[in-house]
Amino acid sequence: MLPTVCGRRILPVIGQPQPERADAARNRRKIIEVAARMIDEQGADDISLDEVARVAGVGVGTVYRRFGDRAGLVLALIDEQERRFQEAFLAGPPPLGPGAPARERVTAFLDALVDRVVAQQGLFAQLEKCGKAMRYSGPYRVYHIHLATLLDEACPEADQAFLADALLAPVNARLIAFQHDERGMTIEQIKTGLAGLATVVTRGYGVTAGDER
Amino acid sequence: MLPTVCGRRILPVIGQPQPERADAARNRRKIIEVAARMIDEQGADDISLDEVARVAGVGVGTVYRRFGDRAGLVLALIDEQERRFQEAFLAGPPPLGPGAPARERVTAFLDALVDRVVAQQGLFAQLEKCGKAMRYSGPYRVYHIHLATLLDEACPEADQAFLADALLAPVNARLIAFQHDERGMTIEQIKTGLAGLATVVTRGYGVTAGDER
Repeated sequence: MLPTVCGRRILPVIGQPQPERADAARNRRKIIEVAARMIDEQGADDISLDEVARVAGVGVGTVYRRFGDRAGLVLALIDEQERRFQEAFLAGPPPLGPGAPARERVTAFLDALVDRVVAQQGLFAQLEKCGKAMRYSGPYRVYHIHLATLLDEACPEADQAFLADALLAPVNARLIAFQHDERGMTIEQIKTGLAGLATVVTRGYGVTAGDER
Repeated sequence: MLPTVCGRRILPVIGQPQPERADAARNRRKIIEVAARMIDEQGADDISLDEVARVAGVGVGTVYRRFGDRAGLVLALIDEQERRFQEAFLAGPPPLGPGAPARERVTAFLDALVDRVVAQQGLFAQLEKCGKAMRYSGPYRVYHIHLATLLDEACPEADQAFLADALLAPVNARLIAFQHDERGMTIEQIKTGLAGLATVVTRGYGVTAGDER
């Protein structure tokens, strides 16, 4: 496919050097591929931008310019699965997507979020180690808005912003790893625990007439 | 007070060099004082063990031997307030300490834990950035056992180990800082939110006869 700038195709001129944007896109793909492979092989804990640049055969400056820092690289690496996940809960089939009662969607969302975090556990653990600005922007911000909106419908008497934080807090890559590895909990047990909590919470704060079935 | 080894006093011999243990204790105090002052002045984010060693005038090896790593130094820095806090919830006056119904103690504990975390927010934020082994050992382990024990009494039908994690998860230094700084929530609002959650949870999973008032 031809490279595009702001949605318009650029026709490459034969014999001329590739336009900068194509080089940049190639470098970006290359860096992401290398970083993903390194994380598969050695885990996300020890990944360094310098090492990624070296293995990808690009300048360290290129990596820092494209991704800013380690957190930027992690966000780029979770991006594709993250888009699919966001589409599923914003516009996919119920109960994760629209069309089910809000309190069922809360449970479905937390359940799907556990799978999401487990699928890229090392990368989410990296995000969780970032400072608060990065930790609570990006994907977290979208999850929070979505959950607070559902809670506004499911339990309008609660402080939805706080409650959304409180329900998102246990869906934490390192906590799930700890519960699984050290406490011997299965992912199903963790999901059952979250579903129980979501039920108790959405019932406990009062249920809107529309949700009462 | 004379230094002790395994509980037995060592009598220093005049004119002899101080026993190694006294030197070690002095170095330890010095390192902790310097680290605490540096954190007061420049925040906990940028503290490096090498810099602490330099300012304290001790060898870098001494700092690493005493504290192992940054996390070990952070644990030493929270130690004194942590002991007082643990005494308060394990043996202090009710409702934080024993003598109140379990579900009141759950609320009192979460409320006190917010104060505890806020009082040494930078240090707790550092602990939260550690790997899961460190993050969920130390103080967290004690909080978890305490809360799970109370929940076992307040709502025996719940999965107490999971529920204790779930209630501890929102009492998170960086989340509280984010809620306060970015969402404009007061610490009182956060405590009210947690108290509401604790009430809904302990009522929702069923209440023991002894707690029913």
